[in-house]
Amino acid sequence: MPIVIFLNGLVLLAFAALMALDAVIFQGTAGVFMISALLTGLAGGLLALAAAGGRRRPNRLDGFVLTSSVWIVAALAGALPLWLWHLSPVDAFFEAMSGITTTGSTVMQGLDQTPRGILFWRALLQALGGVGFIVTGMALLPALRVGGMQLYRTESSDKGEKALRSAASFALATLAVYVGLMGICALLYLVGGMGLFDALTHAMTTLSTGGYSNYDASFGHFDSSYLQWVCTIFMLGGALPFAWYIRVLAKRQLRSEQVQAMLFTLIPLIVGFALWLELSKGISFLDALRMVAFNVVSVVTTTGYATTDYTLWGPFAVVFFFGMTAVGGCTGSTSGGAKAMRWLLMGRALRAQIARMSAPHRVTVIRYEGRRVEEDVLSGVVAFFVIYFATFMGIAVLLSLMGVDFVTATTGSLTALANVGPGAGALIGPAGNFASLEDGPKVVLSLAMYLGRLEMLTVLVLLVPGFWREALA
Amino acid sequence: MPIVIFLNGLVLLAFAALMALDAVIFQGTAGVFMISALLTGLAGGLLALAAAGGRRRPNRLDGFVLTSSVWIVAALAGALPLWLWHLSPVDAFFEAMSGITTTGSTVMQGLDQTPRGILFWRALLQALGGVGFIVTGMALLPALRVGGMQLYRTESSDKGEKALRSAASFALATLAVYVGLMGICALLYLVGGMGLFDALTHAMTTLSTGGYSNYDASFGHFDSSYLQWVCTIFMLGGALPFAWYIRVLAKRQLRSEQVQAMLFTLIPLIVGFALWLELSKGISFLDALRMVAFNVVSVVTTTGYATTDYTLWGPFAVVFFFGMTAVGGCTGSTSGGAKAMRWLLMGRALRAQIARMSAPHRVTVIRYEGRRVEEDVLSGVVAFFVIYFATFMGIAVLLSLMGVDFVTATTGSLTALANVGPGAGALIGPAGNFASLEDGPKVVLSLAMYLGRLEMLTVLVLLVPGFWREALA
Repeated sequence: MPIVIFLNGLVLLAFAALMALDAVIFQGTAGVFMISALLTGLAGGLLALAAAGGRRRPNRLDGFVLTSSVWIVAALAGALPLWLWHLSPVDAFFEAMSGITTTGSTVMQGLDQTPRGILFWRALLQALGGVGFIVTGMALLPALRVGGMQLYRTESSDKGEKALRSAASFALATLAVYVGLMGICALLYLVGGMGLFDALTHAMTTLSTGGYSNYDASFGHFDSSYLQWVCTIFMLGGALPFAWYIRVLAKRQLRSEQVQAMLFTLIPLIVGFALWLELSKGISFLDALRMVAFNVVSVVTTTGYATTDYTLWGPFAVVFFFGMTAVGGCTGSTSGGAKAMRWLLMGRALRAQIARMSAPHRVTVIRYEGRRVEEDVLSGVVAFFVIYFATFMGIAVLLSLMGVDFVTATTGSLTALANVGPGAGALIGPAGNFASLEDGPKVVLSLAMYLGRLEMLTVLVLLVPGFWREALA
Repeated sequence: MPIVIFLNGLVLLAFAALMALDAVIFQGTAGVFMISALLTGLAGGLLALAAAGGRRRPNRLDGFVLTSSVWIVAALAGALPLWLWHLSPVDAFFEAMSGITTTGSTVMQGLDQTPRGILFWRALLQALGGVGFIVTGMALLPALRVGGMQLYRTESSDKGEKALRSAASFALATLAVYVGLMGICALLYLVGGMGLFDALTHAMTTLSTGGYSNYDASFGHFDSSYLQWVCTIFMLGGALPFAWYIRVLAKRQLRSEQVQAMLFTLIPLIVGFALWLELSKGISFLDALRMVAFNVVSVVTTTGYATTDYTLWGPFAVVFFFGMTAVGGCTGSTSGGAKAMRWLLMGRALRAQIARMSAPHRVTVIRYEGRRVEEDVLSGVVAFFVIYFATFMGIAVLLSLMGVDFVTATTGSLTALANVGPGAGALIGPAGNFASLEDGPKVVLSLAMYLGRLEMLTVLVLLVPGFWREALA
C-alpha cells in the first residue's frame, strides 16, 4: 500500500505545480490558485515523504486501490481552487469530478463572465483527465482485467512490436499524439476566428471529449459552420484508440475493426437523422447534417458540447439521443460509455448464437481484430454490461428517492455513468444546467461519473467481502 | 412445412370450438361468436386438410416457423370476434395480441358495461396464452436453444425421471396443475365475495399472469384486502416454474434456486418499499404492505393488474416500477420478461468475473441448480440480453418517430416487450388506457408484445439471411 500513497502524493505535487502555473498566467485569480498550490503541494509532499520508504513493487490489490483512489484525489485537488474561488463545496467537487472524468456536466452559470483563471482550470482538468484515462484504458484496466479489457493485454506485451519497444516510449508517443492533435485543433480554431484563449481551452476540452465550454451557450456560442465541423472531426479524433494512431503513424496500418465499426455505425445514423430533420422540420439538408453530425458525435464520443437544444426536435430526438448516450467511443481513447469494442463483441456473440441456433453442432468461434476471443474476455464484457445496467438502475433509484423526476433521474444517471454531459428534460437537457439540482443529487451524480469513468468494477470490487483477502493471497 | 400449416389449422379449429362455446353460454353476443366460429373453423379445416397429406416429422426450421406463426394465427383468430363485435381492426388485433401474450394492456374503455361474452373471451385468450407459453417455455424454446433455454433440454429428456415417464403425461400434469390452481383461486375469490363470473374470469387472468380485468378500475374495483392478498399469492403462483410444482407434488423436492432467488429478491424489496411508503406518505404499514405487495408482484410477475395509481407516489415509485418491469418471473411459467434464471446466471457470471479479477489464474465454474452451466447456455443468455436491449431501443425509437413522448415510448416499449401491461406517464400508466394511442403505436406495441413473448430471437432469426438455408441443411 505505501506505493499507492506515494503515487497519490506525486499526483498532488503535479496538481500543485499546475495550480502555480495558473496563478502565474492569470492575475485575476492568482491568490486563489497560489493558496491552492501551497495546500496541495504540502499535502502531496507529506504523503510522498511518508510513503517513500515503503516497498515499491505494486501487487494486484495496489493496482485496484491506486486506480480507484487517484481519481478521487485528483477530483478533490481539482475542486480546491473552485471552492476557494466561490463555489460551494458540493458544487466545486461536482465540477471538478465532471472535469477530471471528462464528463462535462456543469453547475456553473454565467460562464461568459467567469475569470479566465477558473475557465482555464476547468479545461486543464479535462485535458489531464483525458490523458489519464487513455493511460488507464491502455495499461491499468487490461492488467486488472476489468470488463474484458484483458483483450488488450497481449497487445502491449507483444514482443514482435519493433517500432516502439518499451512501454515508456509508447506512453510518450501517446502523449505526443494527444498534444499534437490538440495543437492542430487549436490552430484550426484560431484560423476560424476564435481568440487564442478560447482556441486553446476548447481544443483541450474537444480532444479530451470533455465538453466544458467557456460560454453558457456551449459550443453554440460560435455561430460558424467551419468551427462546428472542425470540432466534430476532433471530437471524433478524441474517441479513436490512441494505440491506433501510433500504429497508423509507425506502420501505416489503417485497419481497425473498432474504428470501422464506429464510423460505419455513425455515418448512416447521422445521414438518416439529418434526412428526417430535413423532411420533418424543413431545415436544409446541409444545415441539418451539420447540426446532427455535431450533436450526435458530441454525445457518442461522450464530449457533451451542444450547439442547439435537440430535445426541441421532438420525442424522436429525445429517445434517439438517449440511446446514443449508451454507445460511447473506442477503448484506449478519452471517451466513456460502453465503447465500440464491447458492442462489437456483443454483436458477434449474438451472431454466433444465431449460427448455433440454426446448426446446433457446428463450432462457432468469435474473433476480434483477427484473433480468437477467449471466454474470459467475453464474460468480462458480459460482467461489464450487467454491472452497467445495475449501476444505472441504482443511481436512477437513488436520484428518484431524492425527489428527482423520472426523465431527469434516468437520463441523468446514464449521462453521468457514460461521462457524456447533458441528459434530457428541462433541467439537465442540452439547454439546461446541473445547477438546478439540489446537493444530494449532485453528490450522487459525481459518484456516478467516478464509477462510470473507472468502468464500475474497478471500484466496486473493493467493496466485495473477500476480495481484499483473495487479492492479497 | 406442411406440418406447420397442419398444426396452425388445428389451432384454428380449437379456437372455433371455443368461440362456439362462448356463443352457447352468452346470449348477448351469440351471433358474433357463431359467425366467428364458422369463419375460423372453415379456415382451420381448410388449412388442416390442405396440409394433412404432407410429411409429419418436423425439422429444425419447422420448429421456428411453427412457434413464430402460431401466436400470430392465434391473435388473428382471437381478434375476429372483437372486430365483429365493434372494435376497429387495429384495436381488435391489439387487444387479442395483448390477451394471447398475457400482456394485459387494454384499449377497451367502459369495461363495466361490456357484454360478458366479450369479457369471457378476453379472459379465455389469456388462459390459453398462459398454458401455451408454459408449453413453449418447457418444450419449444429449449429445443430451439433460444436465449440459453437449452439449459432445460436435459431436464425433460432425463431418463431417470421415474415419477413421470413420458412427455405426454408431463404435459397433462402441467395442465392439471394450471387448471387446479385456477380452480382454487376461483374458489377463494368466491369466498371473498366475488360473483361466479368475476371469480372465474379473474382466476383465469390471475394464474396466466395476464391481468385483464372486467372493470375499468382493474383489480382496484374489488375494495377488499382479502381479495387483493389472494390475488397477490396466485399471481406469484403463475410466475413459478410449473415443472417445479410437479416436482414438489411428485417428489416432495421443494428446493429451486430460481424460486428462491425470486422470493428472496421480492420480499426485501416489498418490505423496504412499504416502509418507505409508511414513512414518506403516512400510510399505515399493513395497508402499505398490501398495496406494495400487490402492485410489485403484479409488475414482476408481468400480470399488470393495478389497485392504485402508484405513479402518484412520486418519482421514486415511477423509477422503481420501471426497473421492476425488466425483471420478470421464472422460466417455464406464464410470466414474461427477462426471468429469474437469466438474472441469476448473469449475477453468477459477474461473481465469477470478480473472482477472476482477484485471482486471475484460478478456474471459476458457474453452476445452476447444482449442475455446471456450459458456455453455450451462458452465451445464449447474453444473446438474449443483447437482443432485448436492442429491441427495446428499436421499439422506443419507432414509437417516438410516430410522435409518442419519451416516457410513454420508453416505458411502453419495455412493458410490451416484457408482457407486463401498464407503463408510466399519464397515457399508459396504471391509471391510463392504451386507447389514447393512435393506430401506428398500437401496431408497433402489438409487435413488441409478440416479439417479447417469443423471447425475440425465435422470430428474429427468421429474418436473418442464410438462417433458412443453414437450418434446412
